[in-house]
Order: sequence, then structure tokens, then C-alpha cells
Amino acid sequence: MSCKKVLASEVAAPFRQELKQTIQEKGIRPKLVGFLANDDPAAVMYANWTAKTCAETGVEFELRKVDRNNLEECVVEANEDKSIHGIMVYYPVFGGNQDQYIQNVVSPRKDVESLCHQYRYNMYHNIRYLDPEESQKCIIPCTPLAVVKILEYVGVYNKILNYGDRLHGKTITVINRSEVVGRPLAALLANDGAKVFSVDVTGIQEFHRGQGLKLKKHEVFECDKTLEEVVALSDVVITGVPTKSYKLPTSLLKDGVVALNFSTFKNFEDDVTDKASIYIPSVGKVTVAMLERNLIRLYDYQTRA
Amino acid sequence: MSCKKVLASEVAAPFRQELKQTIQEKGIRPKLVGFLANDDPAAVMYANWTAKTCAETGVEFELRKVDRNNLEECVVEANEDKSIHGIMVYYPVFGGNQDQYIQNVVSPRKDVESLCHQYRYNMYHNIRYLDPEESQKCIIPCTPLAVVKILEYVGVYNKILNYGDRLHGKTITVINRSEVVGRPLAALLANDGAKVFSVDVTGIQEFHRGQGLKLKKHEVFECDKTLEEVVALSDVVITGVPTKSYKLPTSLLKDGVVALNFSTFKNFEDDVTDKASIYIPSVGKVTVAMLERNLIRLYDYQTRA
Repeated sequence: MSCKKVLASEVAAPFRQELKQTIQEKGIRPKLVGFLANDDPAAVMYANWTAKTCAETGVEFELRKVDRNNLEECVVEANEDKSIHGIMVYYPVFGGNQDQYIQNVVSPRKDVESLCHQYRYNMYHNIRYLDPEESQKCIIPCTPLAVVKILEYVGVYNKILNYGDRLHGKTITVINRSEVVGRPLAALLANDGAKVFSVDVTGIQEFHRGQGLKLKKHEVFECDKTLEEVVALSDVVITGVPTKSYKLPTSLLKDGVVALNFSTFKNFEDDVTDKASIYIPSVGKVTVAMLERNLIRLYDYQTRA
Repeated sequence: MSCKKVLASEVAAPFRQELKQTIQEKGIRPKLVGFLANDDPAAVMYANWTAKTCAETGVEFELRKVDRNNLEECVVEANEDKSIHGIMVYYPVFGGNQDQYIQNVVSPRKDVESLCHQYRYNMYHNIRYLDPEESQKCIIPCTPLAVVKILEYVGVYNKILNYGDRLHGKTITVINRSEVVGRPLAALLANDGAKVFSVDVTGIQEFHRGQGLKLKKHEVFECDKTLEEVVALSDVVITGVPTKSYKLPTSLLKDGVVALNFSTFKNFEDDVTDKASIYIPSVGKVTVAMLERNLIRLYDYQTRA
């Protein structure tokens, strides 16, 4: 079998090395605070692992356990606290729309997860800088950004093309259209030039910049193709279905496909390596590297003269 | 029976008269645009009725039917269009979190429904002005505001108390804790001094400013009382359950209660008038008056020197 299996740790390594070096050379001590306001034991485990990973690169991570009814005020305090450079919240807290309200309470200056409206708006509109002088790059949500970095690493992004157009000619299916990962990811990839089929239980949409990338940002079109049809057309298939039982049949995949899974469950069948040219079974370690990268970027913006 | 039934039209009348007079005296022509991006025939009917109601007071209302995948760009255009003073969207469009994203795309300067984060944050935090000079009052969401105006009209607000504290001593149950109506309403009433029991299927919460209103804004506390217990304690019971079959048993109500229903379905039993001192069966006409009132306020802010 010629399938190359790429682990997230391999992709994360150079980013982690660069983060460590930047932190050491500048002699800084960036601090990230994570708020836990639910009883999710998985979140505690994930937070402990984040703390350990951050410590290795020189980032201080503090987990603050709070009552959910005090969460908003605790976030407001952290927004004001100059010793804190980044803030994240372990969702779900209340679930649904009230959580999205909390996402906007986090100051954009400290929003390492890029869940506030301003960053999301910029991302959907392919606005890449926060300032007209283009000195401050926008913050991108960690998991979608991790997927982009992985696709760059495995050569799906073509460096011969101009920056911003490097997925031109690529067809990508993303199975998941959540507001937190699937939809921003589809938009990012389409803004970079891909034709993206965005799949969820309500149907399939196409995200793309038109023939010859004539549009500056992607547009969204309803699509009457089936999952079988779009997967058969796709050079890259990305899965993020949060259920253990979901398996995308290998038989649907194009031979030589790049298969990437960002769900915590394995969404591809075991024999995916029989058909894929490249298989990335998980992205978590790159996601945490991107979290730290966003933190360093926000630290830099906060401390500029 | 001594129950006084108060119709929304009666409460709305003086507001409508005032709106008409302001528009005539100033010789202005405020314009509200409503975006319809779903196939909901009820929304079309409601929009036609809004147009008629607005026309009577001198407000121009234009319904724009758009494809949901173009909605965001159409809203961005309307944000920039100086001939438009207010923007509203008929939800649901995509449902869930993507709709909340769209709510934040509407410019705060034109957000007649007060669904953007800035206004919601101010409301929860009991911040009543947009500017430090206190020349621009915040915009409050229409249905919660309509309920406040009705409670003022029926004397639940006590004018002998200071502005901002006029519900001190009142206990109110609100059955509905949606992000669009129930939760903001509970917060508004608690910020005005009431002790509020906020009820939804996930449980009951208490919103209040503490003993003697020692807090400047409400806090939220989990509550282990049952619906039967909180309703029995309540001077005012407000229902907003969006299902036809739901009926709050009259037997639970305190004698002399003020009963107010903002659901499109009748949430009280027919015999509620046997027990209530005041019964308000619906709020829709006051809601539309508040929509126009918000529009006039935004028009004023937009056209100030």
C-alpha cells in the first residue's frame, strides 16, 4: 500500500519548535486562562493536557473553575486583567445561543479561539488583516486553521500559485457544517481557491469563488448532488462527525484521495489506507499548536507600542 | 368577576399616537427594511401587517425577499445604504448559531430588534446609555420592551420608586428562557428591581439584585423550587411557551395575579380571569409599536450632527 499516514504530532513539531524559540528569544511569558463552567470530565482532561503542552513551549496555562452563572463576570474581569493575554472557555456551558453570547463577551484582543463576531466576519469575508496598514493578521479559529496547516504540510496547497489562491483546482468535501469548525473551515478553503462541498444532515452546499476565482471571497450555493456524488469528485475528504457509529464508506472515495479526520471518533473505515494517498487520522496536536500560535500573536498585538 | 382584561391595542394606542406626531412634526420619513429569506407564509403575513401598521404612523416599510445564501451580503449593503434607517430579519433562516451570526452582521446603528451583541451586553449589564454623556438611550429588544411597557401601563411598575427600581418588592415568573425573549425579559425585570423566576424545560433560575437591591445589576442563581412553588409566590406570571397544547393551570396562580401571555398560543386556561386581577392575552401590537419606537430612536442617532 502506498498510503502515507501523517500524524498530527509530525505536523505540529515545527510549529512547536518555532513557538518555543520565539518565547525564549523574546524572554516573554504569555498567559492563557481557560474557564471551565461545566462538569465535563473530558474537558478537565483536555485542560490538563493543554497545560502540560503549553508548559513545554513556555506558555502559562491556568484553568479556572467557575459557576456558570458567574462565568460572564469572570470573563469580563479577565478581559480587564493585563496579566492575562488569552482567554478560552470550555463549551458547552448553557448550550445553544447563550454560549454564542458568551463567545462575544470575550474581548477580541484576547480571543485565542477566534469565536467573536469580528474575527468570524473577517474570516467569512476573506479579510485577512485587522488594520488597514496590514500589520496585524486576523485570528483564525484553531481547528480550521490546523486543517489548513496540515493541508499545506501534505502538499494540497500548491506553493507555485499566489498566496490566497493556492487551492485553485482542488475539490474538497467537508462533512460537518457546525458554526465552530465545519462552516468556517469550508469558507477558509473556498477563500483559498478550492471548490468545497459542505455536507451536513440538512443537505449539501457548495462554497467557491467562481470560475477562474473571479470572486474575491467565496459565495455559497445550494447543491442538489448526493454525498456519493460529491465524495466521488473530491481530491480531499475531511470528516468531523461527532458520533462513534459514523463511518464514511471507503468505496465512495476517489482513488488517491487525501483523507483527513478531525472528529474525536474515527470517521473513516480501517481500509481507507487501501485507497487514500494520504491519511491524517486526527488533528488535535496541531489544534493546540495553533491555539498557542494565536496566543503569541495576540500577545504581540497587546504589547505593541 | 373583577378581572380586567387589557388588550395590546389599548396599550399601543398612545405610543402610536406619539410616533405619528413625532414623524409629522419633524417632517421625516424613516425607512425600515425587513429581509425575508425563508418560505414561511406566516412571516409574509406578519410583514404585510407590519407594513400597514407602519404606513399608518408614517414609517416606510419595505420587505425584501432574498435567497438565504445572499442574505448576509444584502444586509451588509443595507448597512451602508443611507436611505435605510432600520433593518430586521425574519428568523429562522438557517436556524441555530448561524442565525445568531447574521444578527451580528446587522449594524448596531440600524438594529431595530436589538439582537446585536453590543445591545444585548448592555441590557444584561443594566447599562442604559450608549454614550458616557447619556444622550443616547440603549435599544431594547421589542417584545421584552413591550412587556415592560404593558407592566408600566397596568401599574405593576410603581412610579413612587426611583426610576430603575420600580419593580422592587415584586415577584415575577417568566415561563420561557429563549435568547430572543425570555432571558432578556427576565434580566430587564430583575434589573428594574423584581425578583424573577425564569423557567424553561432545563430548570428554574432566579434573577435578582439581592436584598434591598444592593447590586447594580441582576445576578443569576440556580433555584431548586418547582414551577408550582414559584408560580404560587408570583405577583406577575408571564408565559411564552410556543406550543398550542401548553396551558398553565389556573389552580397554581396566586389570587389577584397579573397574568400576561406573549406566546402566539394561549398559554393560560380560559378560567384565568376567575383568579387574575389583570389579564393581558397578547402583546403583538405593542411589540410593533416598540419596533417603530426603536426605529425613530435610531433615525435620531443617525441624523444627529
